Amino acid sequence: ALRQKLDSLHAADIAYVLESLPQAQRLAVWAQVDPEMDGEILLHVSDAVRESLISDMDRDELLHATEQLDTDEIADLAPDLPDEVMQELLKSLNDQTRAQLESVLSYEEDTVAAIMDFGMVAIREDTTLGVVLRYLRQRGDLPENTDKLFVVDKQGVLRGVLSLKRLLLRSPEARVADVMSRDVVMFHLDDDASVAARAFERYGLLSVPVVDDQQRLVGRVSIDAIVDYIRHESDEEALAQAGLLQEEDLFAGIWKSVKNRWVWLGINLLTAFASTRVIDLFDETISRVVALASLMPIVAGIGGNTGTQTSTLIVRSLALGLVDSSNVRRLVFKEIAIGLINGIVWGSVIGVLTYALYREPKLAAVMAAAMTLNLLVAAVTGLFIPLIRARLDLDPAIGTSVLLTAITDGMGFFIFLGLATLFLLN
Amino acid sequence: ALRQKLDSLHAADIAYVLESLPQAQRLAVWAQVDPEMDGEILLHVSDAVRESLISDMDRDELLHATEQLDTDEIADLAPDLPDEVMQELLKSLNDQTRAQLESVLSYEEDTVAAIMDFGMVAIREDTTLGVVLRYLRQRGDLPENTDKLFVVDKQGVLRGVLSLKRLLLRSPEARVADVMSRDVVMFHLDDDASVAARAFERYGLLSVPVVDDQQRLVGRVSIDAIVDYIRHESDEEALAQAGLLQEEDLFAGIWKSVKNRWVWLGINLLTAFASTRVIDLFDETISRVVALASLMPIVAGIGGNTGTQTSTLIVRSLALGLVDSSNVRRLVFKEIAIGLINGIVWGSVIGVLTYALYREPKLAAVMAAAMTLNLLVAAVTGLFIPLIRARLDLDPAIGTSVLLTAITDGMGFFIFLGLATLFLLN
Ligand SMILES: [Mg+2]
Ligand SMILES: [Mg+2]
Ligand SMILES: [Mg+2]
Ligand SMILES: [Mg+2]
Ligand SMILES: [Mg+2]
Ligand SMILES: [Mg+2]
Ligand SMILES: [Mg+2]
Ligand SMILES: [Mg+2]
Ligand SMILES: [Mg+2]
Ligand SMILES: [Mg+2]
Ligand SMILES: [Mg+2]
Ligand SMILES: [Mg+2]
Ligand SMILES: [Mg+2]
Repeated sequence: ALRQKLDSLHAADIAYVLESLPQAQRLAVWAQVDPEMDGEILLHVSDAVRESLISDMDRDELLHATEQLDTDEIADLAPDLPDEVMQELLKSLNDQTRAQLESVLSYEEDTVAAIMDFGMVAIREDTTLGVVLRYLRQRGDLPENTDKLFVVDKQGVLRGVLSLKRLLLRSPEARVADVMSRDVVMFHLDDDASVAARAFERYGLLSVPVVDDQQRLVGRVSIDAIVDYIRHESDEEALAQAGLLQEEDLFAGIWKSVKNRWVWLGINLLTAFASTRVIDLFDETISRVVALASLMPIVAGIGGNTGTQTSTLIVRSLALGLVDSSNVRRLVFKEIAIGLINGIVWGSVIGVLTYALYREPKLAAVMAAAMTLNLLVAAVTGLFIPLIRARLDLDPAIGTSVLLTAITDGMGFFIFLGLATLFLLN
Repeated sequence: ALRQKLDSLHAADIAYVLESLPQAQRLAVWAQVDPEMDGEILLHVSDAVRESLISDMDRDELLHATEQLDTDEIADLAPDLPDEVMQELLKSLNDQTRAQLESVLSYEEDTVAAIMDFGMVAIREDTTLGVVLRYLRQRGDLPENTDKLFVVDKQGVLRGVLSLKRLLLRSPEARVADVMSRDVVMFHLDDDASVAARAFERYGLLSVPVVDDQQRLVGRVSIDAIVDYIRHESDEEALAQAGLLQEEDLFAGIWKSVKNRWVWLGINLLTAFASTRVIDLFDETISRVVALASLMPIVAGIGGNTGTQTSTLIVRSLALGLVDSSNVRRLVFKEIAIGLINGIVWGSVIGVLTYALYREPKLAAVMAAAMTLNLLVAAVTGLFIPLIRARLDLDPAIGTSVLLTAITDGMGFFIFLGLATLFLLN
């Protein structure tokens, strides 16, 4: 019964079921899945669950599963396959496929090569649409996501594209050369996948040819790889933001989850220790005005919050390519102005709150001044950390939040306790 | 020269140029844009820039710009158009288009209705592929992103779909009814857009028919609306995470930006004040052991970090529908176990560091114990805030971080200073 149920499901749905089952039940279901679908399912599950499924399969099962897949799909699984299986698999492929697979695997993760596939149909320009139609009928099938055919010359150099729309609507007597579009969006193998994704979004594309240095057609990128890429990037960003190395299998061993969370916790612990060392410099001040101890985390915390707002906006603008030397000054001016306004307004609010609580005008004034200054520090920090990282060609998003909080905390404590020492201890 | 340059650009590229220009230059370029492209460009710019462009246009310009657009595109602009223009526009539309527009506008933002368009081609099943091909040639055009035709009966009820692939590959003599696929993914007008997006991703779809309660075809969702939707949702999430109400125009007035950031800063200020009130309860303790002042932010901060890790994972699992009553217990158990392990390990690390700094075994022990307890509190909080919000049908992501930090801060201070009061003051 379970097997029948499973056979009626799409690979993506089986993947979803496996994803939500505890380890033991997951492997029980996995054993019942039609082996012909194993490969597709492995492509659809998350990295964490894929590992758990693969480690349950023997060499022959894995070979059989991967043999069902397209070359680009094998490349997607490759990092998770045991070396032995990979070697065996390479031996079993024909020369063209092996060359394609090795070529794809030689490029880095976020390139066009890593997200392309080989499901393209190439035609010549010196023929008619009628001939092309007959050729396709004879071929009997079209690769998924085919919205256009790629027109190449004898050397395989891309000459243009013929959309299925024109193939359908124009006269069968028309020549490909007259109907095809020559003004083609195309990518190179080592182009950035994120730039490719933006092109798909901007121009509403469904598939784009990929060419090598000699402009020869080598593959294509299709919209569904782009959708997967966009989702993957936004997931990665959301997880990194929370300090997680990767997605976790809900039912993985505890130890695995623990390792996924430790790097970032360790770094945060160190920076927290470092930034609070500042406080020890002022133990004398604190022991005389204990109210400082409960006010200082507010100064530090709100500094972190405003700095994060600024850096988030800058990181996004940098990613969209909106910031350049012509407008960076304006941007800096604007963020510092906002920091100043925020500082004065929230500083005053906090000054009033502090006075209401403690009835000490000098303490309230110190609080207000420290808040104003730290919000300025936060604006400058939130601005320059991503700008400098981008200038150094480091990813502006990564590590920004940890560094930012360390600075706004440390400076917040220093400014507040420093001002308190100057003005309250007499 | 500028005008010629602009005329050669795609609307999306002009949008990008406008996006990166300061207000004055932006409006100068905008004045040079071919009015026929105004509508498309307005669709491509960010919300913030769209506002600045629209406020520069008079009634007639806006009417002309919107007349170039498809019904679904007008609906996308509608919230930003002046009422007067909207009224005028509705009057100028034919009955069918007006009905479509009003229907779309009556649905909420995150529904299928809000992302669908009307670019569908409907055919009958009691005809041949050859007839369909002739009909299409006569029609002379196909809507963008058409990968399939929708087969309907006389009442407009959806009977199946015919892919362009089959239309191309099968014999022109074949009957539509024999070739079409009857097992169709379809959406209803009020389905969740996010559920639709997941369906596109899972099944690699390019277009999906939308039907009303009587199963009558009313529109379609196409992959490019889905790509826009996914990008929009992930942007919204990233901004909300940093406490920003919406995307900011890089060159908007400072005042606008300030308003975009204040709600969240105000809330954070209040919660920071509230959670630090705990510290005042222990002023006696702090004045006697001043080292507590520099250690307490560490306990609070790392608590916030681990709680965020937990809640991020839970929110994501909830969004993917992976959490249900059958596995929630396991999940709770797992996160609490991780919290305990983290607590013991990082508590020990911190105990050792504290001893190294202050050479006071009791202080180190209190620090270690407080850390362990607060990481447990953080795990429980990070777990239950999203679970409870989801149970109450509130969006589990929104507000989680503010509430979480308030609790881990407040509890962190309370546990640490409480233990210190019990064990260090004698
Ligand atoms: Mg199996
Ligand atoms: Mg496949
Ligand atoms: Mg790939
Ligand atoms: Mg593929
Ligand atoms: Mg688009
Ligand atoms: Mg990446
Ligand atoms: Mg903090
Ligand atoms: Mg204009
Ligand atoms: Mg349009
Ligand atoms: Mg819409
Ligand atoms: Mg459209
Ligand atoms: Mg997919
Ligand atoms: Mg939304």
